[in-house]
Amino acid sequence: MRRLSIEPLTAEAFAPFGDVIAAQGAPRGINYGATQRFHDLARIDCDAEGGRTIVNIFRSMPPVFPFEVRVMERHPLSSQAFMPLSGRPFLVVVAPKGDFGPAGVRAFRAAPGQGVNFAPGTWHHFNLALDGQSDFLVIDREGPLLEGSGANCDEVTLNPPLLLVP
Amino acid sequence: MRRLSIEPLTAEAFAPFGDVIAAQGAPRGINYGATQRFHDLARIDCDAEGGRTIVNIFRSMPPVFPFEVRVMERHPLSSQAFMPLSGRPFLVVVAPKGDFGPAGVRAFRAAPGQGVNFAPGTWHHFNLALDGQSDFLVIDREGPLLEGSGANCDEVTLNPPLLLVP
Repeated sequence: MRRLSIEPLTAEAFAPFGDVIAAQGAPRGINYGATQRFHDLARIDCDAEGGRTIVNIFRSMPPVFPFEVRVMERHPLSSQAFMPLSGRPFLVVVAPKGDFGPAGVRAFRAAPGQGVNFAPGTWHHFNLALDGQSDFLVIDREGPLLEGSGANCDEVTLNPPLLLVP
Repeated sequence: MRRLSIEPLTAEAFAPFGDVIAAQGAPRGINYGATQRFHDLARIDCDAEGGRTIVNIFRSMPPVFPFEVRVMERHPLSSQAFMPLSGRPFLVVVAPKGDFGPAGVRAFRAAPGQGVNFAPGTWHHFNLALDGQSDFLVIDREGPLLEGSGANCDEVTLNPPLLLVP
């Protein structure tokens, strides 16, 4: 079984899949000097076909490692952003949009303070929490239909699976 | 100088001003049981007049207390959501939308794990961090114009100021 190497999460390496959300770049001083604003960090794209942007909290349990990556998903109609509220790192597994191929799967380790925004159509595993139960603020799409013609979640099965060892 | 009383932040008390963002209500189990999804927690409303929803990080220093509330602001064209990434509490000072009146100003203490979403037009002070420098994920609006006809920030001066003692 192929073992995925785990790369550090950087904006450059993650660019084919979406955005890294982090306090990086030159901030603007606002609020009479009390606040530094790191501006416009993710391309939110959730309004296709009458969808609207929604905010959710995902509470995730870490998996048992070594973990076998068996299923990945994509949201063809929307971006999906994850920002950790726990201050803990997590693992992100992605593959390029378009036809899925297991050779294209990559794994990243998000450091404390980093989140991700998957671009529409990016294949991804659900987030893999590390070091304990972790909450994420999630920005995604409420669609007019959850199934059928408005479906916004495709899944693909990996056979054989890929092995993830943090 | 009138001293603001500080109320606990609850969805019911905050309803005239917007939403409390927190892992509350009955979640949905997703991701093959690994995740609980607390769904659609805030009314994001950032696309008026050609605006688009953006994601930012605000890094705020706590003020010196006792603090005098002297200026408040509103965004007539958009909601603005703040979710703490620090795990620390913060103070929220608001007044109802419409004509500003100092008698309507209220102060809330957000507990760890709670964020807020200001409804369009809600008067608010900038967030007041507690217990150290704090990062917030902020969801608001990038407009086609920052000044003039597309302006999305009005300010009002409080004279006399209101006193805030946490």
